[in-house]
Amino acid sequence: MVDIANSTSAVPPAAKDEAELERHVDEQLDNSSEAASVDVEKLGRLLLGTWAEERIESRKAMEDPQFHRIDNLTKEDHRERALGQLKALADSGRVLKAFPKSLGGEENHGGNIASFEDLVLGDPSMQIKAGVQWGLFGAAVLHLGTEYHHRTFLPGIMSMEVPGIYAMTETGHGSDVDSVGTTATYDEQTQEWVINTPFRGAWKDYLGNAAKHGIAAVVFAQLITKGVNHGVHAFYVPVRDENGEFLPGIGGEDDGYKGGLNGIDNGRLHFTDVRIPRTNLLNRYGDVAADGTYTSPIESPGRRFFTMLGTLVQGRVSLDGAATTASGMALTIAITYANQRRQFAGGDGEEQVLLDYGRHQRRLLTRLATAYAQYFAHDELLVQFDQVFSGKGDTPEAREDLETLAAALKSLSTWNALDILQEAREATGGAGYLAENRLTGLRSDLDIYATFEGDNTVLLQLVAKRLLGDYAAQFKGADAGTLAKYAVGQAAERVYHFGLRTLGQRVKDLGSTRRAVSEVRDTDVQRELLTDRVETMVAEVAQKLRPASKLPPVEAQALFNQHQNALIEAARAHAELLQWEAFTTAVEKIEDAGTRQVLTWLHDVFGLGLIEKHLAWYLMNGRLSPQRAQAVTAYIDRLLARLRPHAQDLVDAFGFKQVHLRAKIASGAEQERQDEARNYYVRLRASGDAPVHEKDLRKKAKK
Amino acid sequence: MVDIANSTSAVPPAAKDEAELERHVDEQLDNSSEAASVDVEKLGRLLLGTWAEERIESRKAMEDPQFHRIDNLTKEDHRERALGQLKALADSGRVLKAFPKSLGGEENHGGNIASFEDLVLGDPSMQIKAGVQWGLFGAAVLHLGTEYHHRTFLPGIMSMEVPGIYAMTETGHGSDVDSVGTTATYDEQTQEWVINTPFRGAWKDYLGNAAKHGIAAVVFAQLITKGVNHGVHAFYVPVRDENGEFLPGIGGEDDGYKGGLNGIDNGRLHFTDVRIPRTNLLNRYGDVAADGTYTSPIESPGRRFFTMLGTLVQGRVSLDGAATTASGMALTIAITYANQRRQFAGGDGEEQVLLDYGRHQRRLLTRLATAYAQYFAHDELLVQFDQVFSGKGDTPEAREDLETLAAALKSLSTWNALDILQEAREATGGAGYLAENRLTGLRSDLDIYATFEGDNTVLLQLVAKRLLGDYAAQFKGADAGTLAKYAVGQAAERVYHFGLRTLGQRVKDLGSTRRAVSEVRDTDVQRELLTDRVETMVAEVAQKLRPASKLPPVEAQALFNQHQNALIEAARAHAELLQWEAFTTAVEKIEDAGTRQVLTWLHDVFGLGLIEKHLAWYLMNGRLSPQRAQAVTAYIDRLLARLRPHAQDLVDAFGFKQVHLRAKIASGAEQERQDEARNYYVRLRASGDAPVHEKDLRKKAKK
Repeated sequence: MVDIANSTSAVPPAAKDEAELERHVDEQLDNSSEAASVDVEKLGRLLLGTWAEERIESRKAMEDPQFHRIDNLTKEDHRERALGQLKALADSGRVLKAFPKSLGGEENHGGNIASFEDLVLGDPSMQIKAGVQWGLFGAAVLHLGTEYHHRTFLPGIMSMEVPGIYAMTETGHGSDVDSVGTTATYDEQTQEWVINTPFRGAWKDYLGNAAKHGIAAVVFAQLITKGVNHGVHAFYVPVRDENGEFLPGIGGEDDGYKGGLNGIDNGRLHFTDVRIPRTNLLNRYGDVAADGTYTSPIESPGRRFFTMLGTLVQGRVSLDGAATTASGMALTIAITYANQRRQFAGGDGEEQVLLDYGRHQRRLLTRLATAYAQYFAHDELLVQFDQVFSGKGDTPEAREDLETLAAALKSLSTWNALDILQEAREATGGAGYLAENRLTGLRSDLDIYATFEGDNTVLLQLVAKRLLGDYAAQFKGADAGTLAKYAVGQAAERVYHFGLRTLGQRVKDLGSTRRAVSEVRDTDVQRELLTDRVETMVAEVAQKLRPASKLPPVEAQALFNQHQNALIEAARAHAELLQWEAFTTAVEKIEDAGTRQVLTWLHDVFGLGLIEKHLAWYLMNGRLSPQRAQAVTAYIDRLLARLRPHAQDLVDAFGFKQVHLRAKIASGAEQERQDEARNYYVRLRASGDAPVHEKDLRKKAKK
Repeated sequence: MVDIANSTSAVPPAAKDEAELERHVDEQLDNSSEAASVDVEKLGRLLLGTWAEERIESRKAMEDPQFHRIDNLTKEDHRERALGQLKALADSGRVLKAFPKSLGGEENHGGNIASFEDLVLGDPSMQIKAGVQWGLFGAAVLHLGTEYHHRTFLPGIMSMEVPGIYAMTETGHGSDVDSVGTTATYDEQTQEWVINTPFRGAWKDYLGNAAKHGIAAVVFAQLITKGVNHGVHAFYVPVRDENGEFLPGIGGEDDGYKGGLNGIDNGRLHFTDVRIPRTNLLNRYGDVAADGTYTSPIESPGRRFFTMLGTLVQGRVSLDGAATTASGMALTIAITYANQRRQFAGGDGEEQVLLDYGRHQRRLLTRLATAYAQYFAHDELLVQFDQVFSGKGDTPEAREDLETLAAALKSLSTWNALDILQEAREATGGAGYLAENRLTGLRSDLDIYATFEGDNTVLLQLVAKRLLGDYAAQFKGADAGTLAKYAVGQAAERVYHFGLRTLGQRVKDLGSTRRAVSEVRDTDVQRELLTDRVETMVAEVAQKLRPASKLPPVEAQALFNQHQNALIEAARAHAELLQWEAFTTAVEKIEDAGTRQVLTWLHDVFGLGLIEKHLAWYLMNGRLSPQRAQAVTAYIDRLLARLRPHAQDLVDAFGFKQVHLRAKIASGAEQERQDEARNYYVRLRASGDAPVHEKDLRKKAKK
């Protein structure tokens, strides 16, 4: 290999260099910060996104105490309360925007999700129970059924007359829906389906509404007719009678108390020779004639399966949004408190406000940048979702893009929400542990987001699969020889390219810290670094997995397992890039100069934060010289200090009212307490009654 | 600067190099893995630690269902249950080992904590409520009081006749105890203390037993006599009468529902002219004569304050142990399940066991290594604690070491426990979210560990302060000129030293991947890398903070804030090193060769995992060549594969019975379900009744 490395790398920058670095960072920031100020109202409007009206309407509704989460309920009481909340939501009609106009809906898909997401401001149990009823159970009938099912079943679903169950997951098969054990066998004699659960692992499990309230279910089962298994299809199955008792052949169990979302009655179901009419097959993508003949508009069983599941992407889309709303709430609570709470005396003898501590800025403001990225990325996802589901842009490619985007963003945002909620909890200390300050309740309710509607780890593998597919598509049609040549050529080019780039950095930066600083803040440089990492990681994994096609299956699997971790990390890098791109686009659209300045800083904290997180990769792969790597961290630290005075504006722009936050520590009570305490001591000193401190007496005595 | 850098750094290793690297790792491992096998019983004995008998006895007691956590209770019911549990514990006498023999105790400090820690196997609410009663309230009377207080108050405390409150924290002052607002003013006329809460922020808050059960309290207040404030002291204050009503002048509030630990009735207290006898001052470290004259055996008010607080270090010590026990439980549950649960078909068409997935190994086995490090480090902490508290080794230096060690280990282990519990929860999917599988309940109960008994962030700053102090001590007596010279000399030496080292690596490793691999697994190399990082980080921060002593206070504070993050990271690095050293010592003591082999691998996963986590630092500071950095990750991956067959043994060695775990997914039920499902399909295929799959028909038709 060519020896063109960054030659100063092994030597840590001396203190002098660091001081110089910091000076240059400040210089850069001073040149650009003349008019930094946030127009809270305009920024708030931008954060509301494309379906602002629907979101505002939903937030308005969530001001009503009947929708607020109450702590310290037994699960039995919480379940009944949530059921009542759903009935109230149904009566309001606000949750039915996605349904057909002919049935009283609005066919407004984006607006429906936006409105749904902000239900998290009320009670997440209510939200997810609503998601089960209208987003899963109802949506399955809508998207997998046809006109007969819409006409027959949707009115009762929409009105909550028929609380329903979405019976997909089985105890033995979580994310692997293709392998469910439940069977639906067609009986030509009676023209009925016979639903069966062949073993304990095939019990349907974790189903909302199954333990108590559900009276019908959409059941996913292997469709068998004429001795052939046509794969998983969905069936409409009544499960309880008017007294709430299971119908014949149906049994179940309560999943019991959970880590959160205890307003939802999750449970298990199993079926023994349960018979339903032929027409209860939701037959949009696969049908059986009276004589048992199977037909489908989609020939490939694999594509058919993924098309069916794809119609249910809205669950993932809406979790991305709800996780983002909750992240905004948590940061509003923690940052408001950090701006009022004082702890430990500072340099002037006065106790210092928490947000003035460097560590506290690191903890909260970096996460604020992440939340902003999520807001902007989510709006793009929602637009894409609406395009497909409204039919305005419904192509197989658009659907595939939507699914990849949803998988990528949902994984990141649900994990980030847990991280943000926890950091907010810890940053508010013991107060954060009290239910009255909301953070622990939200965290426990949102915990399951990481593994439901697709386990995040599995979703990232779907993203990775797509990335590998796109990568391989470049080689399509190439014969083995060409391919090998290409691979060699590419590798050579890569080394050369990287070598040149690092050499370039060295030459450019040599003796010029100013240059290093200026380079890392450049948007194009950030983009190049983030993009390059994704592409390189994908190419590397692809190369390593290439032998798999020629290996026996067991060895191919072992090869895959060996690189599974790298594969998932590549997908994560891709998802991070998507968030960053959305943030970049959003900043470019801001017209108010002061706001754009502050958002540019916040954007850079996010972008450089991603690079800092993966700094080892950039260093090992020769993408960043140690000098530039140093600049990354120094730059983030300085940006945080610049952002600090705007922190309150940035959370206020999320637009939550006290009635949404309902957190005592964010209500101004802390400010009142601090003012009262400070006034007390001022008055005491003025009165002359203040005791002297032994410490001070001893100091005086020494002199 | 000298150009002596690792010249191959900018060029990413080609696939060929990586294959070579992997081959060398395997070679190393093959040479050492002849006899890898775990003697579960002997290893289990080692993990039980120095006070094995006490721990076994406590675990035995926790088999009794009366001590088990019940989910879905209201806080009111949970509180009453926990109170009953405490009475049962008091009757058993097991929780009183630390008290004086003259009062029926054993004066067995280490054994007392070991026994207490494993109460977490029953119900964490019971454990922490017991900690409040005997570890805080009782221990304050024991360690801050004198013979009169022991004789008068301890019997009621020990028997639970007097449930008590440890009233230290105030709403306005969490971790900053020195600044509490509550005052105790001596009235010479009546020879009484007058306790007052001057403003809302000075209300005592988050106090266990305060909302309901507590009838007396140890109250921390500013001691004022003859117009002088002698700083914070502790007072014994009755707070409720026999009917559970507040005594005159005392008021309070319920903290309400919390994120966890709802068996404890946390609440707030405030005092208005509450009078108690002079002798209710716990007067071991400061006393007031009848005429109001203050005396103390410790002259410096600062040292007096820290000595008083230092007696209460056992809270931190025991949280380190309880967090570690809970981590072991979580990993036992998740790894047992991962060894039985199958998901997605593997290469042979059979569904694959979760723990065979590379990602799953990364998620769980790296954390298993961390848990082991915590077990060994905790036992060392407990030994140190016992030395000091038994009087066998009670010197000011030993106390200071103990406090630093406790602060360092408690911070890491409580954070790690939350991380491990969450990863275990996610790794077990929806099942992990059900309360019946224990993980969410443990996580919500242990959440507060991160910020109580000292906020982890504040504790790490205490550790950092000690590290800076030790560093500065090297320069004591040196005049400014010498110091400057030293600083320069040291910096020059550092650059030279690092340069030489990296140069050495380059020369040694050049063309020899074998050498790079062999080097990183060496224990001395790991130690050098970890130690060097701590020392360098401390030295760097110290240098940056040096100007502070000459700056005006406000600027000094600003300088500190700027480097606060780096300071905390240095302390964390130190704590990680302590855990690693304890793990290293423990492995050396293992006599069984097979067990030592497996534990060596686990130890290397822990050590290399720390280095991998901070890889950017090692690269930027020239401590690792990119080649060795690559070797770190490759080596961890291979080690995980080697450890995988021993994973079950390694969690079994923690020694938890089913009655301790009480997690359905770890009970063998999953194995039964998997076997049943597989047998079903085997029989179905054998019967000839199995439907053919449409996919297979289409494949055949194509041929």
